[in-house]
Amino acid sequence: MPQKKLQLNADMGESFGPWVMGLDHEVMPYIDLANIACGFHASDPDVMRSTVRMAVEHGVKVGAHPAYPDLVGFGRRSLACSAAEIENLVLYQIGALAAICRAEGTELSYVKPHGALYNDKARSEEIFTAVAKAVVAFDPKLPLMTLAIRDTSRLRQLAEAQGITLLLEAFADRGYDENGHLLSRRLPGAVHHDPDTIIEQARRIAQGEALTASDGSDLILEADALCVHGDNAESVASVRRIREMLETL
Amino acid sequence: MPQKKLQLNADMGESFGPWVMGLDHEVMPYIDLANIACGFHASDPDVMRSTVRMAVEHGVKVGAHPAYPDLVGFGRRSLACSAAEIENLVLYQIGALAAICRAEGTELSYVKPHGALYNDKARSEEIFTAVAKAVVAFDPKLPLMTLAIRDTSRLRQLAEAQGITLLLEAFADRGYDENGHLLSRRLPGAVHHDPDTIIEQARRIAQGEALTASDGSDLILEADALCVHGDNAESVASVRRIREMLETL
Amino acid sequence: MPQKKLQLNADMGESFGPWVMGLDHEVMPYIDLANIACGFHASDPDVMRSTVRMAVEHGVKVGAHPAYPDLVGFGRRSLACSAAEIENLVLYQIGALAAICRAEGTELSYVKPHGALYNDKARSEEIFTAVAKAVVAFDPKLPLMTLAIRDTSRLRQLAEAQGITLLLEAFADRGYDENGHLLSRRLPGAVHHDPDTIIEQARRIAQGEALTASDGSDLILEADALCVHGDNAESVASVRRIREMLETL
Amino acid sequence: MPQKKLQLNADMGESFGPWVMGLDHEVMPYIDLANIACGFHASDPDVMRSTVRMAVEHGVKVGAHPAYPDLVGFGRRSLACSAAEIENLVLYQIGALAAICRAEGTELSYVKPHGALYNDKARSEEIFTAVAKAVVAFDPKLPLMTLAIRDTSRLRQLAEAQGITLLLEAFADRGYDENGHLLSRRLPGAVHHDPDTIIEQARRIAQGEALTASDGSDLILEADALCVHGDNAESVASVRRIREMLETL
Repeated sequence: MPQKKLQLNADMGESFGPWVMGLDHEVMPYIDLANIACGFHASDPDVMRSTVRMAVEHGVKVGAHPAYPDLVGFGRRSLACSAAEIENLVLYQIGALAAICRAEGTELSYVKPHGALYNDKARSEEIFTAVAKAVVAFDPKLPLMTLAIRDTSRLRQLAEAQGITLLLEAFADRGYDENGHLLSRRLPGAVHHDPDTIIEQARRIAQGEALTASDGSDLILEADALCVHGDNAESVASVRRIREMLETL
Repeated sequence: MPQKKLQLNADMGESFGPWVMGLDHEVMPYIDLANIACGFHASDPDVMRSTVRMAVEHGVKVGAHPAYPDLVGFGRRSLACSAAEIENLVLYQIGALAAICRAEGTELSYVKPHGALYNDKARSEEIFTAVAKAVVAFDPKLPLMTLAIRDTSRLRQLAEAQGITLLLEAFADRGYDENGHLLSRRLPGAVHHDPDTIIEQARRIAQGEALTASDGSDLILEADALCVHGDNAESVASVRRIREMLETL
Repeated sequence: MPQKKLQLNADMGESFGPWVMGLDHEVMPYIDLANIACGFHASDPDVMRSTVRMAVEHGVKVGAHPAYPDLVGFGRRSLACSAAEIENLVLYQIGALAAICRAEGTELSYVKPHGALYNDKARSEEIFTAVAKAVVAFDPKLPLMTLAIRDTSRLRQLAEAQGITLLLEAFADRGYDENGHLLSRRLPGAVHHDPDTIIEQARRIAQGEALTASDGSDLILEADALCVHGDNAESVASVRRIREMLETL
Repeated sequence: MPQKKLQLNADMGESFGPWVMGLDHEVMPYIDLANIACGFHASDPDVMRSTVRMAVEHGVKVGAHPAYPDLVGFGRRSLACSAAEIENLVLYQIGALAAICRAEGTELSYVKPHGALYNDKARSEEIFTAVAKAVVAFDPKLPLMTLAIRDTSRLRQLAEAQGITLLLEAFADRGYDENGHLLSRRLPGAVHHDPDTIIEQARRIAQGEALTASDGSDLILEADALCVHGDNAESVASVRRIREMLETL
């Protein structure tokens, strides 16, 4: 059965002021979707502008990567916001990046919450809905990127209730539990370091083949996108290899 | 000669988190244009949302009120940003507020820089142009609000060079120098406190009659808008009287 | 049995930049202890300076009121910080206020965490200990203010393990559950609004008499301090009446 | 004539949250004085704690490196603060770092303003005095580090008026004008890149020999300290060579 082509997404534009993070220039040529930070956990208007420009130059689609307002914590710490607060702060960040896209002759293609907000959205239907409301208020045609778990029926239900579509992403370098959730980083097997293992997991996801969950069960993930990283030379090498592998399918 | 109708604008949405500023509910019924803070000198996503909603309820047009990133200084302190930094931070703020407008079923009508950025734009052509570039990058149809001085030919030239239009504003409660700039607050006659004086100055501006500049010369200001304030009961009373006066013209 | 004199404490210095909060000038004359915000949830260096000066003028002792770094949320939203992060951010805030005390010829007398950090410290021994470590690292003689619950033995144990003392506070305007915890604001009886009820509860606490917990049981709180509020005219009136009542005991 | 030993100082602790800046671990072994950022332009409570600890381990003295509140601009952009605002924000930052020093068993040794505040202090006596007031309010024994210019008599006068002492620093890698001010980076000869030139300039400063100013005149700088950098491998190599050269004098 022919698969829909798996798109590679990576977090981009995570520098802030004078501080550089990520090898954006090296990763951008190999990805399809750039999750661009919007200033609440990383990035600033200048970094956003130059990152969007770089994405445009490489024909990469831009996604908003909104987060909790926590620069020093890089948006990785959960903040007990109300649903209304989350809706409005996501909307604010989407709009800010959308304006910068417009200035660079492109437009937003999707929204992917970052860090703790990404995780909180997965564990709380109220937070998922708050994020979805922000997306639909801005543009109902923008898909919301979320984790491709084993059974996405409830997620699809919540998304439909708000009138949005989902963009499901999987990970090539992470282990999964039986429900298709990422294994906690504290558990053995949570993160794959061997490049061959990573490439093989990427291939399986791309071709709709089953992974092996931590309980030994077969796990098929219906993923639209694969999350890759450009933090260091090793991860960039993996991105390149994944891209080359995808071209051969 | 029939005058174009003078529109009243006021700074709105200047609360922040738990801190309330301004009598927005009392002023909104009497104005045409709400300059809404965008989170850099005041406001936050929740305040922006509720302020835009209030503007919509009163049929008031929404303008973006971007500023230097200086919450504690309320955007009143000049910050030595580069032109590119100013362009991008204005663009970011415009976009953030535009998204919130979209969520409330309206759209931005104009842009008015706030505080030190408003003043710096008036004294530096480089900064004026940086702000104009941000506005045109977002939407060339959005006018940029700026001070209605005696001779606006150079301002119009700069605006045309960027492809934007100007929305000129005057003040009913401030004294002017011979060039039509506001008198420094340190000078006598800089601020009018007498309500009748304020109403009379507003009427003259509305009808295209001359004011008297600080050097005694006649000063005719071609103003599209009049800036009013809603900080306290007195200023709200003045706004109401100005509105009533305008209705009688 | 003669009681140790109950001291009144109130949150002071919660203004921020141009935004004013609280009736500090009206409350300061009636309290013994001023919990002064340190810039992370409210206040700024200028507000801290003027508030410490006001405390000194009224012979009021200064306590540091550190919080999570969340200005827009006023420190009321829990932020998932590590213990080390909490220790260091509390230490930072204590030091900042201590320097301002020194400039005004006084010194810190105690530490009382604010908002969500106050609550998190009460529900997590790890967070309590992180706060205590910060206090003892700065000055082991500074007491840590915490809620006077029915059984404080575990709190005293934790405090002793770090080498600090506790300053226990009670509330005159809140209902208590059977363990001496404050009733959730969502429950009936959580907040007293009747001034006479408030004064009577203050008197009972001051004289070591029992309150009635929400389960009907007698509740004796060994409190060193009573928390009062200066948000509005009513609460200021209550503070004055509590002060007058305490003088008569 | 025997010279007072020239001390090496470098900016340390400029990382922020997840963003790393500077090769602190590689530079710390070779310097005498660590100018540690205080959270307004860089650093955070955790970075401050670990940097102070590292300084203590290497027997390096800790100086406070306060700045304007401008993280995204790294404190390099002048902000039009009032004198009182500058005094209080410097005091706040000094106190925050002093508390962290205390927790690590050391204390502050000096204060060196950062970036735009360093430069503004040099061009404005009002700002110099505001900074000096903050230092003396915290501890009159703390010296204030400032640029060793040709004629420091006015600086010494201003410092004495506030009751503080100066710690004068020179640069080995910068060209000087005839008054002993650093040449603007836009001018030729402003920055030395040749390692031998840098070492030779360091030696001359250390031994009280004259440099050649941009107008060809001899320039003798009475410096207590030499500013070095640890941004990259080259600058670290220079620091090591300067340290070795100083040991041979």
